[in-house]
Amino acid sequence: MNKIEHIGIAVANIEEANKVYKSLLGYEHYKTETVEGEGVKTSFFKCGDSKIELLEATNENSPIAKFIEKKGEGIHHIAFAVTDIEAEVKRLQKEGFRVLNETPKQGADGKIVVFLHPKSSHGVLVELCQDANINDK
Amino acid sequence: MNKIEHIGIAVANIEEANKVYKSLLGYEHYKTETVEGEGVKTSFFKCGDSKIELLEATNENSPIAKFIEKKGEGIHHIAFAVTDIEAEVKRLQKEGFRVLNETPKQGADGKIVVFLHPKSSHGVLVELCQDANINDK
Repeated sequence: MNKIEHIGIAVANIEEANKVYKSLLGYEHYKTETVEGEGVKTSFFKCGDSKIELLEATNENSPIAKFIEKKGEGIHHIAFAVTDIEAEVKRLQKEGFRVLNETPKQGADGKIVVFLHPKSSHGVLVELCQDANINDK
Repeated sequence: MNKIEHIGIAVANIEEANKVYKSLLGYEHYKTETVEGEGVKTSFFKCGDSKIELLEATNENSPIAKFIEKKGEGIHHIAFAVTDIEAEVKRLQKEGFRVLNETPKQGADGKIVVFLHPKSSHGVLVELCQDANINDK
């Protein structure tokens, strides 16, 4: 794992949360993006070498809608930057981690992503992220 | 906010969690430290320019014990590095954030820290951290 790529925060209303996080961090988000496959609308703030990603559900079946229903708004996942996501998935499977999607899928902000089950990592939903264009060979 | 200083993760058993996070990250933690005032035993892993902090309760009144009882193991807080914690507290109070301890207190890993109430920031417990020795004037 190279670094914390971002922290994902589940919010009920992304416009309101954008205002709050602008006040908190002292600057604006740099992009918004909807990832239809995941049922999420996202907003990104840079923070040092990492990012804060706000996530709002776009429909009631979205994992974010279910998370908020169960736990309320709050930190949803930690994403780690990796350079070779497929090798990292194999390594983690050997170490006994439960991988939720073995084949990387499209994430927000130009990434391909794999999630690990929270039960594998003491209740933390872990995302592995690799720049998507590395695979455009 | 300069960067994400660390992510705090509440765990039931820090020895077990150390093994799991060593497997996940691919390397060992660099220190452990008990903060009696907070009722926590901590373990730190470097991760890029940030850290992962595992937190185990040292007694049943510890905020970590209460967190785990209510929500289970998982991500407990995000800590942001700041250079002038007192100025930052004043700025955030003006912005309407609810500060849990106005006077910075001793945190782990050589920091002085202030917490913001999760209700102020969409369910996220936010910690501000400043290097403690900056105040040794």
